[in-house]
Amino acid sequence: MMGTEGSAVSDQEQSTLAIVCGGGSLPFAVADAVLGRGRPVFLLPIKGWADSDAVRRYPHAWMTLGRFGMPRLMALNAGCRDIVCIGTLVRPPLRALRLDWLTVRMLPQFYRLFRGGDDHLLSGISKLVEQQGFRLLGAHEVVPDILVPEGVMTRIRPTAAHLADAARGFALLEATGAFDVGQAVVVAQNRVLAVEAAEGTDAMLERVAALSRAGHIRLPPGSGVLVKAAKPGQDRRMDLPAMGPRTVEGVRQAGLAGIVARAGDVIVAEPAACTQAADRADLFVTGIAAKPKPSA
Amino acid sequence: MMGTEGSAVSDQEQSTLAIVCGGGSLPFAVADAVLGRGRPVFLLPIKGWADSDAVRRYPHAWMTLGRFGMPRLMALNAGCRDIVCIGTLVRPPLRALRLDWLTVRMLPQFYRLFRGGDDHLLSGISKLVEQQGFRLLGAHEVVPDILVPEGVMTRIRPTAAHLADAARGFALLEATGAFDVGQAVVVAQNRVLAVEAAEGTDAMLERVAALSRAGHIRLPPGSGVLVKAAKPGQDRRMDLPAMGPRTVEGVRQAGLAGIVARAGDVIVAEPAACTQAADRADLFVTGIAAKPKPSA
Repeated sequence: MMGTEGSAVSDQEQSTLAIVCGGGSLPFAVADAVLGRGRPVFLLPIKGWADSDAVRRYPHAWMTLGRFGMPRLMALNAGCRDIVCIGTLVRPPLRALRLDWLTVRMLPQFYRLFRGGDDHLLSGISKLVEQQGFRLLGAHEVVPDILVPEGVMTRIRPTAAHLADAARGFALLEATGAFDVGQAVVVAQNRVLAVEAAEGTDAMLERVAALSRAGHIRLPPGSGVLVKAAKPGQDRRMDLPAMGPRTVEGVRQAGLAGIVARAGDVIVAEPAACTQAADRADLFVTGIAAKPKPSA
Repeated sequence: MMGTEGSAVSDQEQSTLAIVCGGGSLPFAVADAVLGRGRPVFLLPIKGWADSDAVRRYPHAWMTLGRFGMPRLMALNAGCRDIVCIGTLVRPPLRALRLDWLTVRMLPQFYRLFRGGDDHLLSGISKLVEQQGFRLLGAHEVVPDILVPEGVMTRIRPTAAHLADAARGFALLEATGAFDVGQAVVVAQNRVLAVEAAEGTDAMLERVAALSRAGHIRLPPGSGVLVKAAKPGQDRRMDLPAMGPRTVEGVRQAGLAGIVARAGDVIVAEPAACTQAADRADLFVTGIAAKPKPSA
């Protein structure tokens, strides 16, 4: 900590990375990618959310939401300065939290957090993490190639009609951003079939599949796009939307034609496996950059 | 048709009312209410959507979407001048339509209709109906007391927190109106839990119930509001959102605290049964008028 600015940054890059793990496989994909780059990790899996079988493969300290005192000490002991928070996280009611002493001291701040939506909670957590002496990073800052790139990732390319559906989806996500809803919609032939909220992308895709099976919606062959983007104004270090091979499988089962993600906005776990799964199923996966805002 | 303007209107009010019936129980609730007012009805149930058991209780001619020629003649023969369209209606792919001659002549118009979302389809149908010599009315024009009134309909009243959730829901529905999405959302403690699209309100409520059972969301007791409103700019003669005792039951099973509907925007089937069901379940149902737009 006494070195020049440059060496301090370099110290941090070699220091153990703390990863606060929510649900899903993404935290472990990130951990593996970080390890693959030669940086050690220390997991802080959240009880009730993180996959306990997967957690065992890494050094870790289980964390109960609301109990940051001990895990903080353990992470500091493990040499962590940087923290990444990743994985699905559904907001618990305040009474479900078991509070420790450090947390009790922060309680007034917590109360304020829990009154808002997810964005509010996450940006609040990030502030608390930084107050506790850590530097909060986004997963894409430690594993830069984890974000969906611009361009088509698959053999199949989207048609103009698919891109028009994607544009409608992006516009809808933009319009709902202020309401802290979801980060994904399904659009087919200009019609919005599903909007993600608390259920998450996988459940939304299952819904489209079920509606289709029951004949409540009819997807003409080759139509239907899953559209994913970050919420406008979102703290990009927290809760970027994610997709992986399971998303591709959900899209296939829903009978959609492919996935359009906002390039640089969406984390893709196991990109090679995604592309393979999509190619096998004749689906497209493509990243589209946001249009630059008109200046003046 | 030779009388004065006043007697012409009165003729029409006593003429048989044609009711184009989509899915659900609402078309029959409307038919019964119209009959209760002494006006005869002639149902034009749509094959694949309308409940064939219920249809049998009324004079009717089955209609295939895209085949308007024969039902039109039968409705005219039955003395109909006015038409009401009501019930859920999911957009079919164009190739699923079996076209008759009158429809073939209107095909260019149809093509344009089927490219848009539901709003586009419905407003297009209304234009076609009028070109065919009928007067299109909204269900609320023939049964004025069918709309949710302003005020609390139940023993239980919503709290300030519930009304804040409702305000958030109304604002979200306003923001998504241009995208022709759904007409209902679920909001709990300032968080949007579900947004309705193609699945409809009942399925959305089942989703909230399932998310809650699985622990993916936790609804603190006494929280959670189903918010319903018409889309902004919607042709009010077509496809106003509706609720009935089944909606109340869905809200109960989802563990929500009640329903807030935009007064004058939402059709309530069997209002007495709704109130009874809500009172039995300790739920509130209330209508809230839209705030007048600020002038200048």
